[in-house]
Amino acid sequence: MAPNGTILVTGGAGYVGSHTVVELLNNNYSVIAIDNLVNCYAEKNQKPESLKRVEQITKKQITFYNVDIRNKEALDKIFKTHKIDAVIHFAALKAVGESVQVPLMYYQNNIAGSSTLFEVMQNNGVKKVVFSSSATVYGLPQHLPITEAHPTGQNCTNPYGKTKFFVEEILKDVCTSDPEWKVILLRYFNPVGAHSSGLIGEDPSGIPNNLMPYISQVAIGRREKVFVFGNDYSTKDGTGVRDYIHITDLAIGHLKALEKMNEADFKGWKAYNLGTGQGYSVLDLINAFAKASGQKINYEVIKRREGDIASSFADPSLAKKELNWTATRGIDEMCRDTWNWQKLNPNGFQKK
Amino acid sequence: MAPNGTILVTGGAGYVGSHTVVELLNNNYSVIAIDNLVNCYAEKNQKPESLKRVEQITKKQITFYNVDIRNKEALDKIFKTHKIDAVIHFAALKAVGESVQVPLMYYQNNIAGSSTLFEVMQNNGVKKVVFSSSATVYGLPQHLPITEAHPTGQNCTNPYGKTKFFVEEILKDVCTSDPEWKVILLRYFNPVGAHSSGLIGEDPSGIPNNLMPYISQVAIGRREKVFVFGNDYSTKDGTGVRDYIHITDLAIGHLKALEKMNEADFKGWKAYNLGTGQGYSVLDLINAFAKASGQKINYEVIKRREGDIASSFADPSLAKKELNWTATRGIDEMCRDTWNWQKLNPNGFQKK
Repeated sequence: MAPNGTILVTGGAGYVGSHTVVELLNNNYSVIAIDNLVNCYAEKNQKPESLKRVEQITKKQITFYNVDIRNKEALDKIFKTHKIDAVIHFAALKAVGESVQVPLMYYQNNIAGSSTLFEVMQNNGVKKVVFSSSATVYGLPQHLPITEAHPTGQNCTNPYGKTKFFVEEILKDVCTSDPEWKVILLRYFNPVGAHSSGLIGEDPSGIPNNLMPYISQVAIGRREKVFVFGNDYSTKDGTGVRDYIHITDLAIGHLKALEKMNEADFKGWKAYNLGTGQGYSVLDLINAFAKASGQKINYEVIKRREGDIASSFADPSLAKKELNWTATRGIDEMCRDTWNWQKLNPNGFQKK
Repeated sequence: MAPNGTILVTGGAGYVGSHTVVELLNNNYSVIAIDNLVNCYAEKNQKPESLKRVEQITKKQITFYNVDIRNKEALDKIFKTHKIDAVIHFAALKAVGESVQVPLMYYQNNIAGSSTLFEVMQNNGVKKVVFSSSATVYGLPQHLPITEAHPTGQNCTNPYGKTKFFVEEILKDVCTSDPEWKVILLRYFNPVGAHSSGLIGEDPSGIPNNLMPYISQVAIGRREKVFVFGNDYSTKDGTGVRDYIHITDLAIGHLKALEKMNEADFKGWKAYNLGTGQGYSVLDLINAFAKASGQKINYEVIKRREGDIASSFADPSLAKKELNWTATRGIDEMCRDTWNWQKLNPNGFQKK
């Protein structure tokens, strides 16, 4: 029984995807997850490990397809096989540094893939989508906190960020072309943490690109120390300040977006920031993690990283007002749940 | 003998493409033209009529493939069959109004197609491209004349314009990722006119989207009158002012761009305006066409068209300085050559 309808989740096996699937299943949605598995672990001919764990957490089943969103025929078949009510679109490559190295791979996956997905949706009359966007679309902040009215697409310093901006623009144009479309753009700040069960969490392959998994791997002894990129920013302690948000809060935001699109007067597209509104520095996060884990976190300050900005944090008041959503989990819970996941899965999903 | 090398021309059968192929062949380049033929006339299993005419004009042969740039395998085969020195990339959908109606078709063709082309180029070690961009990337002009330093991507009012902007951004990122790439972005103002032979010219299907072919079809009697969208702009006569450029001047600009990329110190990407620097109003163009054709051109002023701007014209001095290029054909020649083409081919390329 899924009285709330059937949601197709692209990139469903990934970090944000899998946590969102938990919340969907716990809230009486039926889920079709698709993923091309390039960034997640699966045993041969099996569901990805993350989704097996989601089934374990929720005691519910997920329909899974190993499909790439660039594969129009395969996508079309899924839309013809299932009655899909809405799509939550996570599938994308997401490593900023890699996107500078191999931009065409990013444009192919993220732009060509998304536009193929939207075409298949249009052809099958499915015209509701929640898009996994990012605060990176704001580029260098012109004011803090950042509201949704902040200009987008200016000074996006890397191809990853540009793909998020371009897909937002594509969806805006789709809404203009056909008033039946309903689109919510969720602009994430910095997702961290893990499900409270410790069964799923962020599982980066190779050297983590993000700070929290890096800290966590130092705490568990997989890496020697955290590199802090600059302590001469104009912030309280000189290190970069970001708006970290617990992955479960973020996941719940997607359910609120689905509910919003079901309101009778919802039309066209709307963008919402998902953040706490509270900025923490790199050193704040290291200290909080040390406290939560009881481990000493070694770190070394090195020079600034090109393209990094001093501070970024959200004004999340629009999501509170219009989605009835607000982040409830603080930095201690973010660190505690990350550490719990790390301890239970020292090597991530891959069994060793 | 083609001592200047072999150029792959995508969209080679189109208006700008075919005129550029003439200049390439006349200047000792060998040409491989590809086109998916969605916007040009070809008899079954034959070369498109435009390219047959080009062969007639130049007395040289063109290698032609009916290939869509989204077809990676077919593109790859062409790059493996021929030793290609550089690409001139025209292939794109180009109707502004249609792009608002069916944006995903535009994003698929123009963005996904371009990024597929660039991937195949990269894989085959062909890293020189001249991209057919447009003054539309400047959006609403913040100053006139427009220099290449004018911001791009702001207030692009339609998906067509956005696709030009996005492809420029993709190419900039490709240059950042691999310093061997050489890229020239040619930002066209308003191409008009036809080859002086009258054998090739603009051949819009259906109602022309652009002013000059519309005027020309009125002159020949295919349409009753020209609709002038507003005469209350702040211009000399109230009608919109644009920078019209003769298609042969424009075509020659592409050869200059190829030469520029061969200079030893050329690196990365560069953008150049291709325009005359001279603005003409709608009424100027109607009057000049009446004079050139000896026909009365009926017109009716109707209300403004959404998204239209009062004036747009180029500062073409950078192309003069760095490409040694300047437009030499004026408005009378533009009208004369259009009329010559129209008279000789009242129904375009299609024989009736």
